Formats: sequence, structure tokens, C-alpha cells
Amino acid sequence: MQLSRRQALIGATAAAALPLIKSEAAHAEAPAATRQAASFYRYKVGDVVVTAVSDGAATFPIPDNFVINASKDQVNTALEKAFRPKDKVTIAFGPLVLNVGGKVVVVDTGSGAGAYAKSKGAIGQFGVNAAAAGFDLSKVDTVVISHFHSDHVDGLLTADDKPAFPNAEILVPAVEWKFFMDDGEMSRAPAGRMQAVFKDNRRVFDALGRKVTPYEWGKDVAPGLLAVETIGHTPGHTSFVLSSGNDKVFIQSDVTNNPDLFARNPGWHVFYDQIPDVAEATRRKIYDMLVAERLKVQGYHYPFPGVGNIEKDGAGYRVVPAAWNPSI
Amino acid sequence: MQLSRRQALIGATAAAALPLIKSEAAHAEAPAATRQAASFYRYKVGDVVVTAVSDGAATFPIPDNFVINASKDQVNTALEKAFRPKDKVTIAFGPLVLNVGGKVVVVDTGSGAGAYAKSKGAIGQFGVNAAAAGFDLSKVDTVVISHFHSDHVDGLLTADDKPAFPNAEILVPAVEWKFFMDDGEMSRAPAGRMQAVFKDNRRVFDALGRKVTPYEWGKDVAPGLLAVETIGHTPGHTSFVLSSGNDKVFIQSDVTNNPDLFARNPGWHVFYDQIPDVAEATRRKIYDMLVAERLKVQGYHYPFPGVGNIEKDGAGYRVVPAAWNPSI
Repeated sequence: MQLSRRQALIGATAAAALPLIKSEAAHAEAPAATRQAASFYRYKVGDVVVTAVSDGAATFPIPDNFVINASKDQVNTALEKAFRPKDKVTIAFGPLVLNVGGKVVVVDTGSGAGAYAKSKGAIGQFGVNAAAAGFDLSKVDTVVISHFHSDHVDGLLTADDKPAFPNAEILVPAVEWKFFMDDGEMSRAPAGRMQAVFKDNRRVFDALGRKVTPYEWGKDVAPGLLAVETIGHTPGHTSFVLSSGNDKVFIQSDVTNNPDLFARNPGWHVFYDQIPDVAEATRRKIYDMLVAERLKVQGYHYPFPGVGNIEKDGAGYRVVPAAWNPSI
Repeated sequence: MQLSRRQALIGATAAAALPLIKSEAAHAEAPAATRQAASFYRYKVGDVVVTAVSDGAATFPIPDNFVINASKDQVNTALEKAFRPKDKVTIAFGPLVLNVGGKVVVVDTGSGAGAYAKSKGAIGQFGVNAAAAGFDLSKVDTVVISHFHSDHVDGLLTADDKPAFPNAEILVPAVEWKFFMDDGEMSRAPAGRMQAVFKDNRRVFDALGRKVTPYEWGKDVAPGLLAVETIGHTPGHTSFVLSSGNDKVFIQSDVTNNPDLFARNPGWHVFYDQIPDVAEATRRKIYDMLVAERLKVQGYHYPFPGVGNIEKDGAGYRVVPAAWNPSI
């Protein structure tokens, strides 16, 4: 249809009972609509208020070896099947804030304010979105870290490397802490990305004076927030079960990265999985459990707001997003 | 796990390299987290900025005859399959605001400020969420109505029955206008809900002095916004194709109601479909087209933000939600 609006209205007028076309002069100036909504979303798990606070998303051409056991063509086929654009990958980042038992608990921190400036706001949005959601990071009681990759720990620091949560206790997986802060492990790690992970953890935790509280699996790290071993992605990778009353949600951390690729294809090994076979075994075990128990799941790398359920889909799984609740 | 947080931390401490548990006294007061995010979401279609602005959602026990040709048990089975709660239905409402060609165009208006007060904010949220998105309703140039049900037209008025868009041209489907404003049609309509629809339209449009511009199908009602006949839900029910550059989105209005029920089961006739067989034929034709063309679709009754793609799913269809983009 290439008819002009005037032609369209003339046509409409001919068919109309009471055509009263307003004067063009009355039309007012259009306001700008250039900023995305502050991407936070609240839902309740029993008495706990969960706020999913987006840290943004990164989009980049599919790197070589992004999936170490699948070709770029296979990745493109999976993207097409999920109605995502071809030849590029988008990874979303989703820290959480929990209001639980009178405390404010943050689960993972995003890439931090330094990355926000560097990426021109694409990532490192957590601070901005948390503020929009009414949270003051200086009043956070507890920060729980799932594992030691930069998109989870770098947000512990401000852009000038000061503590971003100055009054919070920082809880880290004991196994992860032991592995990544061990100088022997660092000396044996391959050059390149693995060395960078070790160095980044020293940068972050040294800036905090290494004042952290390592936690163990099988124990609550906050009221109703149970730490669960889900290793493979890293040696100390941790998920959580948040329970309150009869309700619960499984916080999967990085059991899968982008679910269009790695829930649909649980046998695919993302470049970031440190122990790929163990990560895959964990993924299959956890996703089978999520299906069998019909357990709600929150995914760090799911598209915002990142909460849904899992169903079997052929040889893999599919995330069924929860329906957005416009009230709480 | 019923271990206390203290026990958990003692356990963690035992395994820890550098356990430094912060004093409980340092923990600050938790801020409240009681309000949902203002539910608006922006995306681009070519040069056009689309802002999906939630009008809220209504949740109610499954009414008798909600699906006139399926039982409550069948509805519950569909809800369970979609991981939604049983025994109740949630219907979301999603007007749009388009920034197109220097103009601000609103597509459908929600249930209005009167309903907002009456429902304690559950529905009628459009005004509040549009304001949060930076829109001033007095600066809206054009309002396009898809059909004449109250959840689409009542937002044309303020809570005290004044024009909610005082400077906008109001475009209505010519066939819908002719049908619902015809006193003969009204006199022949069944008592109950159908009479109420006729009366509501007189209330709304009389308050506007019947100053509307009827439009015809097959013509643009705003730059790049083509009106498409999709009758059956009502006699003049209209969808839209928004096109800009190489990009487009199909604005389906009420071709399906809640997609977990009526996209999955296109043969089901929702109580609100006025000419059920015609509505079903339209639904199947449009959804087959959306699948064949892989065309992006925006649904008024899809969960917010209501944009996605359609895939075949057995004998029905399934909405694959678009991935939320935390930037624009």
C-alpha cells in the first residue's frame, strides 16, 4: 500500500457516517522516544520479592569456536529456528536483587560501571537499573556470587575500583575461591582467556582487600537461598534454590548460556565452559530435574526478565517465559 | 535445607581461605520493593519507534462458556501445558504508541482511567505507563482504534468522561463505526453483553461529540500503518501492518485473545468472538501467513511486551516472544 494518508482518509471519508477530519495544524510536537525502559521486573516467591535487574546485553558476530563442538552454520540454524538474527549472538546478563527477611541480597553483579562507560551503556547497566528500581547499593546487606567470570564479579567494583556495595558481606563459592585465588592453579592455567580470568579475579578481590566469605554447597547463603553445586562451567560454579512458603525458583546461573542455543542443544559446549563434559552432564541433569519438577527457573543469560519454565523439545529443552505481570 | 544462615556461614568458614564475616550491625535498612516497573518497552521497525505500553492485565476464575466450544478441563489442560496457573485466566492488554514521521500515533487505548481506579490499578494502566515512557497524551496526533470493545475504546476518555487525547484525530474502522452506531443493529442485538457493547460505544463516542474519522481497509491510516480487514472477532475488526524500510510487524489486535489458549488452539472460540466461525477462519489464515512469512507480530492480548514470532505447534500455533533488548 503506497497510498498517502490523505488519500486513505478521503477513501475513509467516502464510506463514513460522520467524517470530521481534524485540522493538521492542531497536531502537536512529537515527544522523543529514544530511551529504553529501565529494565527491571519484580515477582514474588512466597514472601520474597525478586527483582530481576538487567545488566544489559552484548551482541557480537559469532566468534570462531563460540561453540567448540558445533559449526557456525549449525549456530545459524539454531538462531533462525528461534527467530533471532543470523550471524550474531546476543548474550543478556541478569543479576537479581532479593528482598528477603528484611535484608537486601544481590545475586551476581554484572560487568560494572567501568564496562557501562566503555560499552556506551550496552552492558554494566545493573547500577542504573537498580537505582531506577529504588535500590541504593550502599544499603545492600549481602552479595552472593555464583562464579568468578567477569560478567558476574566485575560489578563488585565501581568505575574507579572502589567497593560498589560498601556495606555488604560478599559471599563467594568456597571451591571457586580456592581454585581461582590459588597461585599454583594460575601458573598452570593456559595463556589467553584463562590467564585473564585469574588476573581479573585478583584485580577485583584485591580491591576489596580480599574481604569475602566463602560459602559451601548444600547450605543457605541467605534466608531460603540454598547454594547448589552445578560445576563444569567453572570448578566452583553454583546455582541456587530460592524457597519461601510453597513457592520456589531455581536460579540456574550459567548452567546454560543463551538458551536458544544451549538449552535447545544441551550437548553444545560454549567457549566459556571450563570443563565442557562436566558442564554438559550438569546441564542435562539440572534441565531434566526442572522438567520433571516443573520448577520455575531464572537464567542469568536468558533474555530479560529471565524467568520461566523448561519443557522438553526434541533432543533438547526450551524455555517458556513466564507471563509478565504488570502489577505486583 | 533448614540450616540457619549462621550455621551455613560457619560451615563455609571452615572451608574458607580467608573468612572475614562482616558484622551484622553494618547491615542497613532494606528499601521497599513493592511496585512493579512501569511496563513499557521500545523497539524499532525501520525508522519507526514502537513503544508497547501495557494497560495492565486482568485475572479471573475461568467463566462458564469462556471458550464456547471447549470445556473448563480442556482450558485447564492448555493452561498447564503453558505453565500458567490453573482455574483462572489472565488477559493482558497492550496498546501501542508509534513515533512515526514526526507524529505520535496511539493504537488502541486500553480500559481508561476510570477502570484504573475501579480495578485498583490492575487495568487502565495505559495513562500511567505512557507518562512513565515520556508521552504526553495531549500531544498525541492520532489515535487508531482496531475495534469497538471496551478494553480498546474506553481509554479514549478520562475518568470524568473528557477526551483523553484532546488534540488527536480519532480514526475508527468504517465498518465497525457503521455497525455499532446503527440504532437498528442495536435494537436487534441480544440482551446482555452485546447490548452493553452498543451502549458503551454510545457513551464513549457521544462524549467525543462523535468526532471521529472512519477509515477503510487496504489504506494507510498513518505513514506506513496499513489497515487490514481481519473480521470475525467483531464485524469491523481490524489489524495493521506497520512497515518502514525493509522491516515490518503485523499488529494482530484480537485475532487471538490469550495466545496460550487461542493460538495453541485456533479452533477454540472465545466468548468475545462475535462471529465465531469467521473469527476462526481469519485466525487460521492470518497465523498461516505469519508462519509462512516469518513475520514479526504484536498481539494486544499477548503477555507484555507482546511482540514475537509464530511457529506451527501441532495442530495450532505458538508465540515465540522476541528477546528483550535492554537498550534501543
